[in-house]
Amino acid sequence: MYMHRHGGDVYSEPYEIDFSANINPFGMPQSVKDAAWEGVVSSVNYPDVSCRQLKKKIAEKNKIPPEYFIFGNGAAELIFAVVSALKPKKALVVSPGFAEYEQAARASGCEIEHYFLKEDNEFLLEKSYLESIKEDTDLVFLCNPNNPTGHLIECDFLHQILEKCRACKAFLVLDECFNEFLDQPNQYTMLQKTKEFKNMMILKAFTKIYAMPGLRLGYGICSDYSVIEKMEAMLQPWNVSVPAQMAGNAALDEEEFVRMTRTFIGQERRWMKKELERIGVRTFDSKANYLFFKGPQNLAQHCKKYGILIRDCSNYEGLSDGYYRVAVRRREENEKLISCLEKAVRQ
Amino acid sequence: MYMHRHGGDVYSEPYEIDFSANINPFGMPQSVKDAAWEGVVSSVNYPDVSCRQLKKKIAEKNKIPPEYFIFGNGAAELIFAVVSALKPKKALVVSPGFAEYEQAARASGCEIEHYFLKEDNEFLLEKSYLESIKEDTDLVFLCNPNNPTGHLIECDFLHQILEKCRACKAFLVLDECFNEFLDQPNQYTMLQKTKEFKNMMILKAFTKIYAMPGLRLGYGICSDYSVIEKMEAMLQPWNVSVPAQMAGNAALDEEEFVRMTRTFIGQERRWMKKELERIGVRTFDSKANYLFFKGPQNLAQHCKKYGILIRDCSNYEGLSDGYYRVAVRRREENEKLISCLEKAVRQ
Repeated sequence: MYMHRHGGDVYSEPYEIDFSANINPFGMPQSVKDAAWEGVVSSVNYPDVSCRQLKKKIAEKNKIPPEYFIFGNGAAELIFAVVSALKPKKALVVSPGFAEYEQAARASGCEIEHYFLKEDNEFLLEKSYLESIKEDTDLVFLCNPNNPTGHLIECDFLHQILEKCRACKAFLVLDECFNEFLDQPNQYTMLQKTKEFKNMMILKAFTKIYAMPGLRLGYGICSDYSVIEKMEAMLQPWNVSVPAQMAGNAALDEEEFVRMTRTFIGQERRWMKKELERIGVRTFDSKANYLFFKGPQNLAQHCKKYGILIRDCSNYEGLSDGYYRVAVRRREENEKLISCLEKAVRQ
Repeated sequence: MYMHRHGGDVYSEPYEIDFSANINPFGMPQSVKDAAWEGVVSSVNYPDVSCRQLKKKIAEKNKIPPEYFIFGNGAAELIFAVVSALKPKKALVVSPGFAEYEQAARASGCEIEHYFLKEDNEFLLEKSYLESIKEDTDLVFLCNPNNPTGHLIECDFLHQILEKCRACKAFLVLDECFNEFLDQPNQYTMLQKTKEFKNMMILKAFTKIYAMPGLRLGYGICSDYSVIEKMEAMLQPWNVSVPAQMAGNAALDEEEFVRMTRTFIGQERRWMKKELERIGVRTFDSKANYLFFKGPQNLAQHCKKYGILIRDCSNYEGLSDGYYRVAVRRREENEKLISCLEKAVRQ
C-alpha cells in the first residue's frame, strides 16, 4: 500500500514533542482558534466559493490586487492544481527539496529534472542553476527559504532566475511558505514583483506561522489571470472550508504575534545551532524556523525512544542516511532535544 | 471573471432561510460540532494523511474492507480526482444533473456526451439510457437519487447499467450523496456491489445528512485498488482537515439522528409536494430531501424579496427558465416558502 512519508505524522506512535513538522512553537493564537470555532458553527452552510472576505483583507494588507489571489486547502493543494492547470512536459526541481513538487508533477505525467545541491558547497543554490533552466523547461519549482536546508536565495538572484524563465517561457512557482519566520521577511520576498513577472506564482501558507496545519489554508499570488482561471477550473468550487476561511481572516490581524514569533525564532535558532555544533553534529546555516544537520544513522529511531519526533531526511531525493531536520521550538523543548541528541552522539 | 453558480451561496446577499442547499434542516448534531471543535484545537498538527481512524470506523460500520475507501475534502474533490486519475476521453452525463461532473471532465479535456432526461417522461431515466453507454465511453456519472430531480434509479436497472459499463470497459461513478435521506436507503444503494463491480466508485458525503457542508468531508468506495491509488497520487496528502476527520468520526455514531431525519424528511416532503400542487406548480416526484418543480419565471428573484433563497435551475444543462429546486426544511420554514411561492403564483 502506498504510504506518504512526511514530517508531522503524530498519529502512528505516541510521542511527547514533535520536531518533525515546522510549525510555530507558540501554537495557534486564541483569536484564530475562536474564529475557527465560529467557523464550525457556520459550517451548516457551504463555504464561500470565492473566499471573498479573506481575499479582500489579504489583498489590502499586501497592497496587491485581489484578483491575483487563489486560495487552497493548504498550499499543497495549489502545487497539484498549478501542475494540472499548466500541464508542463518538463519541470525543474531542486534536490533536496520539498517532495510534493515532484509528486505533483509526476502524477500529471511530467518529466522531472533535478538540480542537485552540493554538500561541498553547503547545499547552496549556485549560479550554475541558471543553466539548468532551458528552452524545454516548462515549470520551475523553488522554495525560499529552501526546505529542508533553510537556505535563502537572494532577490537579485531570483530576479535573474525569473528573467531566464521568461526567456525560456518557463513558469516559476516560488514557494515562500516559511518567509514569515525570517529575520527580514521583506528582504526575501518577491511579492512586489508579481505584477512585473506574469510567469511567476508565489505560494504562501497560513499553516506554519499561525500553527494551523490541520485547518488547511494556503494561497497563491499571480498576475496572469489565465493561470488563476485554469487552476480554478481544476479545483472544486468549495475547496476552502468555512473554519479555514474564518481562521485565516482572524490570523491576518495577528501582526504582533508574528513579530514576536520572528524575534524568538531568530534568537532560538542561533542558540540551537550553537548547541548542535557543540555536541558535534554538522549543522547547515538555516535562516528559517528549522535546522538541517548531519548526524549518526538511526537518530530518528533513537529520538523516538525519548518521545521526540525528528524528520529523517534520508528519503529526500539527493540525500542519503544521516541527514535530519528539526523545527525550532521553545527553549525547554529544544533543551530536551539537544540532550537527547547528545546521548546518541556520545554513544 | 469566472463565477461558479450553485445553491447555498449565503454570502452574496442577506437572507432569512436557505432552501437552495439540500442540507439536513436539523443542523449539525451537537456531538459533531463538539468533535469539530476538538479538531480545531488539534489542528496545530497536520491531519492524518490516511484518515486511519475514520476509515477503520466507517469500514466496520458498513462491513466493507478499509482499503476500498478514499476520503476527500468533500465528495466534490473526489469527482475532480477520479477524472484526473482515469483520464477519460469521453464521459457520459445525465442532464439535468449535478454540474460538477461535467466541469471536472471538461477541465481535464474530456469530451462530454449528454443523455437528456425528457420532461414528457417526468425526467425519469429510461431504458434507452443503456444504449448511450458505448464502446468509446470511458466514464459514466450517475447520481441516485438524481439532483435536481430527486428521482431514483432501481438497483436492477443499475445492475444492467454496470454490466453494460463492464462490457464497454467504462467506469461508473455512482453518486449516492443523498441516499441517507431516502425512506428505504438500503434498497437503493449499490454499496454491497462494490466487490462485484470493480468498475464502479460510489461517492458519499457527510455534507448533507450531518449538515456540515462547510467542514468538507466526503468519500469514495471502490474495490479496484489501482483506481484508489491513482486518485491518491493526484491529491495532496493532507486533503482532509483535522476538524473534518474528527467531525466525521463523531457523525458515524449519530444513528438515531439519521433515522429521525429520514422519517421527518419523508413526511415533510409529501406534505410540501401536496402544498406545491395545491398552489398550482407542477412538482416532480422526488424521493429525496428536495423537490423539483416548474413555476413562473423570476421566482427566485421574487423569493429573495422575502429573504428566501431557492435554487433557480435555469443554468442546468437540459433545462431552461422556470425550473426550481427547494430543500425540504422544517414545517415552519416550509410554510413560509409555500406562502411566498403562492403569492408569486397568484400574481
